[in-house]
Amino acid sequence: MYGVSKSVQKLIEHFQKLPGVGPKSAARLTYYLIRMPKEEVFAFADAIKDLKEKTKLCSICANISEEDPCHICSSGTRNKSIVCVVEEPLQVLALEKSGFKGVYHVLHGVISPLNNVGPEDLKIRELLNRLKKEKITEIVLATNPTMEGEATAMYLKKLIGPLTIRMTRIASGLPVGGDLEYADEVTLSRALEGRRDY
Amino acid sequence: MYGVSKSVQKLIEHFQKLPGVGPKSAARLTYYLIRMPKEEVFAFADAIKDLKEKTKLCSICANISEEDPCHICSSGTRNKSIVCVVEEPLQVLALEKSGFKGVYHVLHGVISPLNNVGPEDLKIRELLNRLKKEKITEIVLATNPTMEGEATAMYLKKLIGPLTIRMTRIASGLPVGGDLEYADEVTLSRALEGRRDY
Repeated sequence: MYGVSKSVQKLIEHFQKLPGVGPKSAARLTYYLIRMPKEEVFAFADAIKDLKEKTKLCSICANISEEDPCHICSSGTRNKSIVCVVEEPLQVLALEKSGFKGVYHVLHGVISPLNNVGPEDLKIRELLNRLKKEKITEIVLATNPTMEGEATAMYLKKLIGPLTIRMTRIASGLPVGGDLEYADEVTLSRALEGRRDY
Repeated sequence: MYGVSKSVQKLIEHFQKLPGVGPKSAARLTYYLIRMPKEEVFAFADAIKDLKEKTKLCSICANISEEDPCHICSSGTRNKSIVCVVEEPLQVLALEKSGFKGVYHVLHGVISPLNNVGPEDLKIRELLNRLKKEKITEIVLATNPTMEGEATAMYLKKLIGPLTIRMTRIASGLPVGGDLEYADEVTLSRALEGRRDY
């Protein structure tokens, strides 16, 4: 890349591999790091390495953790009879912030024939094993309200249905603070379907 | 941050310190790195450290470089009588892409009384020294067309003016591919002022 030093160029290329980071943001981030104190930049680099070295998947819920079982699965204060099934570890983060007090099961993907992802590629076998071993009373299907997320939820419902465990699906509707005017029609019809007495 | 492993949480915090990276993108980037191959993630971390360890400021133009003088200043094919003055090293990158064949001088900031940045905080003394030592025939003032960039250009014009060196300012006007309808009035009036025979 023309008159730019090699180490600058190399880091710009690395940043560009990250999702949502284009050539301009990659350059901006790189030049920002140049101006940051050395200790802080090194701590950042070490945090990246630690992420890969210290984390593994929890053998119970398949969430990302430094311990196995993870500290949600090994906690004494969580309601282990409610298992919330999510697509990705990132979604555990979101649900934790919302105050959910049950435990999780991370599928690590969704069923997506177009991308060659079938049920056998997800942590579904592990989920069935948990249902046999643990005392689970409710499965909350919290895959995304997308086509693939819905298909995966539907697949799990059919698969687990015969086990007579209560299965619920997170609600779809208007986001809090949202505006009817800007909601798409599918979301609106879901919000209507899911209406409750008031 | 609730039920999230320490190394994940730490890296999210580091990402959040970068410009334009909010809590959600920081989490997304972190979880993306978890899925990336270990070698690639380690190469990324090493590139960050290299950036700080291998780069320094060129003693001539104050651009960021691995060598001193930088390979623009030490190149035999550049026109060293034209010096383009920019605010930040990142802008050298942009100008290099545009095909500029002179050399640079990086101020490392703009005059900004509100942020307590005066002329003495910028590489202006170094620029004056270059004007004494080197055979420079033209100074291209390429600070940004912002209030602070204009003020800095004006300051340099007054300071260097008496030395009877040709001074030019990059043109302001409509961006290529832009639309008159969406241009702000100041840009439009600049575009009109700067009109040329056609």
